[in-house]
Amino acid sequence: MASSLLTRQLAFSLQKNLRLAAPGSRYVSKTATKTVSEFEYDAPSMKTAVPGPKSQELLRQLGEIQNVGAIHFFCNYEESRGNYLVDVDGNRMLDVYTQISSIPIGYNHPALIKVMTNPNNVSAFVNRPALGILPPENFPDKLNESLLSIAPSGMTRVQTMACGSCSNENAFKSMFIWYRNKERGYTSPSEQEVGTCMINQTPGCPDLSILSFMGAFHGRTMGCLATTHSKAIHKLDIPSFDWPIAPFPKLQYPLEEFVRENAQEEARCLEEVEDLIVKWRQKDKPVAGIVIEPIQAEGGDNHASPDFFIKLRNIARKHGCAFHVDEVQTGGGTTGKFWAHEHWGLDDPADVVSFSKKLQTGGYYHRDEMQPDKPYRIFNTWMGDPSKNLFLSEVLNVIRRENLLEEVTRSGKALLQGLYALQTQYPQILSRARGQGTFCAIDACNDATRDSIMLKARNKGLFMGSCGEKTIRFRPTLVFKEYHVHQLLNILNDVLAEHK
Amino acid sequence: MASSLLTRQLAFSLQKNLRLAAPGSRYVSKTATKTVSEFEYDAPSMKTAVPGPKSQELLRQLGEIQNVGAIHFFCNYEESRGNYLVDVDGNRMLDVYTQISSIPIGYNHPALIKVMTNPNNVSAFVNRPALGILPPENFPDKLNESLLSIAPSGMTRVQTMACGSCSNENAFKSMFIWYRNKERGYTSPSEQEVGTCMINQTPGCPDLSILSFMGAFHGRTMGCLATTHSKAIHKLDIPSFDWPIAPFPKLQYPLEEFVRENAQEEARCLEEVEDLIVKWRQKDKPVAGIVIEPIQAEGGDNHASPDFFIKLRNIARKHGCAFHVDEVQTGGGTTGKFWAHEHWGLDDPADVVSFSKKLQTGGYYHRDEMQPDKPYRIFNTWMGDPSKNLFLSEVLNVIRRENLLEEVTRSGKALLQGLYALQTQYPQILSRARGQGTFCAIDACNDATRDSIMLKARNKGLFMGSCGEKTIRFRPTLVFKEYHVHQLLNILNDVLAEHK
Repeated sequence: MASSLLTRQLAFSLQKNLRLAAPGSRYVSKTATKTVSEFEYDAPSMKTAVPGPKSQELLRQLGEIQNVGAIHFFCNYEESRGNYLVDVDGNRMLDVYTQISSIPIGYNHPALIKVMTNPNNVSAFVNRPALGILPPENFPDKLNESLLSIAPSGMTRVQTMACGSCSNENAFKSMFIWYRNKERGYTSPSEQEVGTCMINQTPGCPDLSILSFMGAFHGRTMGCLATTHSKAIHKLDIPSFDWPIAPFPKLQYPLEEFVRENAQEEARCLEEVEDLIVKWRQKDKPVAGIVIEPIQAEGGDNHASPDFFIKLRNIARKHGCAFHVDEVQTGGGTTGKFWAHEHWGLDDPADVVSFSKKLQTGGYYHRDEMQPDKPYRIFNTWMGDPSKNLFLSEVLNVIRRENLLEEVTRSGKALLQGLYALQTQYPQILSRARGQGTFCAIDACNDATRDSIMLKARNKGLFMGSCGEKTIRFRPTLVFKEYHVHQLLNILNDVLAEHK
Repeated sequence: MASSLLTRQLAFSLQKNLRLAAPGSRYVSKTATKTVSEFEYDAPSMKTAVPGPKSQELLRQLGEIQNVGAIHFFCNYEESRGNYLVDVDGNRMLDVYTQISSIPIGYNHPALIKVMTNPNNVSAFVNRPALGILPPENFPDKLNESLLSIAPSGMTRVQTMACGSCSNENAFKSMFIWYRNKERGYTSPSEQEVGTCMINQTPGCPDLSILSFMGAFHGRTMGCLATTHSKAIHKLDIPSFDWPIAPFPKLQYPLEEFVRENAQEEARCLEEVEDLIVKWRQKDKPVAGIVIEPIQAEGGDNHASPDFFIKLRNIARKHGCAFHVDEVQTGGGTTGKFWAHEHWGLDDPADVVSFSKKLQTGGYYHRDEMQPDKPYRIFNTWMGDPSKNLFLSEVLNVIRRENLLEEVTRSGKALLQGLYALQTQYPQILSRARGQGTFCAIDACNDATRDSIMLKARNKGLFMGSCGEKTIRFRPTLVFKEYHVHQLLNILNDVLAEHK
């Protein structure tokens, strides 16, 4: 099926792909060979404004069933290929948001289709096991060849979960259990603890806290949500916990030009972290763990230096708090290393590292001592999904075979250089270009301008994401090449040139 | 692949299947035709004690990666068929626990294998969308033909989620949002609310509560866990909320014989519910919603009468609380109706009904007014998984085509009658047989006896689940026929006969 569609689409795209070549020509690469992967299209192709009439009709239908206020358009995933997302009106867009950063190697990658058509894999899809009680024969092997082959330094244990929020919730629970076991000297809980926990009361349900950062996003279930502070709409009306919230450094970009100022800002935040740990201990709500993203994503693509994270990790150790690095959005290769925390250069970067999105399955790695002492403390019916592990194995094969981390580094440099050039050319519209690998972002002068740029770009075939107050975030796949960078910059340049 | 394995296994089973016929012969049906489905085995077949040597070796391997204390054995899912689960040591067991009640129509059902091999479905597996922003073209249609075709009375809206806990967490959030919107008269939130919610403080994060019941199980993420009160091991060391917990009726069985006593017990519990609602309102932590299972499962298979639920639903309405029926374990046909709450006979049974497990996807239905007023309030990256909706559609086709709800009712009657007979025969060991459809349970005299019976039965080829303190729970598939009931009862009878 895939190849016949491909033929049709390629023929079609050959008729249309020159339309975008003219206006932004200064970004068209003179050197890079146009290496269209065999399964991919070679350019966007637009037929209607987005959302087109078919999307609008489907929006009306789905509106009878759900709130559809967040829906951009409806997709034809069968016809989508690689970096190009096709919508139901036949519009083909260069997708640099990739299902909120969760598509690792592009749409309909032949390697993933092969996983589906391999008869040995059928059972993993149709017989979803309760992994915590009845794992399949190949489960240890599959964990070894997939998740453990990319385990963060110092971690040999991993627990899969169904999604990012469940991963963080369970990581938090592991930290609470670890902290209380340490406090009670690894003895059995008292009768009072056992009794009170059944009715949500202390000491069985202790007043422990997780320290998080302003601007953080760690998910939307109630434990996670108590550590999420990116946008009010996520949190409004939902009961929460009185947990400490530290300031995340507000750095000036480009980082290389503001080393001294940024170091001061980071020192201020670290000082506040220590103050909060002491303050919450005094309030009898001790901090069991600190959770942080290596780059705050939903909160506006906020970076901090390796030095900041190294010092924060030491503060956690000093105060006996677990250190949880949330790599749900940063993990999977998009920063040019498999894990963003690898950029810190630590042998012992964290006690817990959670993941989801590009890894296809949720879950978290942890150091040995973070494993609960008893079964059923970290547990649920499915505890992940072995069929997702199959996809992950194949994604990792492709990443290795095609040296995609190097590609990401190369494309990321081109993208960031292009964003720097654009903000130089349009200083009244754009500022604060920043990024690591292809995990890049740029700010507009205000949210209305940001939103307008995004809609205009979408109508020209470039689909981007937003974050923070006025930020555009770029979250392309790992098969996003320099050639795609130039397409992106061409379209963005066209939009900005037309912007009054 | 499936058919060649089938041939081999059928030939094998024909050699072995007579071994279990002798001892419990009084339960061998004289009338029912032995209708082995074409894809299924016809009896258990045991080769080793369970766990066998291969399972033990794999247990050691997985122990290097995870806590394995809850694992029973490792499975050969490829060789499993219908109601029979095959382990890695070649033992074939009649499975009446079915992955914690999550396998609807048996292992490797041909209809589900067909879903996998249909080329039109490939894209749904390899391109997992962010459903909240970029749904696939067929999403409204698929919802209509699957989830909405079985929507509870009064509900036309449904939100999919990845698992049971996420379903309940988001259902709770919907109830909180609904309650606060009602309180503030559907006006915009104040600046103070918007500001305080970002730092987890009131009024933005209000002190609202969910009323739950002692013995309840609603999941293990932190919001859900605050409403779970089945076992201390689930809750110990995890911070919680000060939410009201009402007693769940402790009924005497068989229900028909204790109508007056049980009605009194239910009245006592309902009175306590109203007292708690008033008390928590006075504490300024008003009850936004009441959550309850139609049959408490993990907490010990505790039943209540339709009258109890009808009155509880009215109490919720009277006090302005939302009413959330958690059908994660009871839903999907196992009680003889698709939803357990259908046994109450209400046109307006609930404001929210959550599901997961047998439905393959998590999620919740809700009445129109429970839909959040704005996008992104109920949201996450994946919001379910369209590939699971494909399986659900096919499961529903099989349920309808094969009249499986009638089968469940028939098998359930045979099972409960058999359990009554066993407890009459072994009154010193068994008591309180109870059930609805095949959702049945029986108590042992203590937990050690219960555990011993379960292990001995497992070694004879019957795999059951436990719940509560000393309960055995039966959670067979929907293709569990009277013929399988007799196998189950035969084995159980053998075990009890040997029990000193």
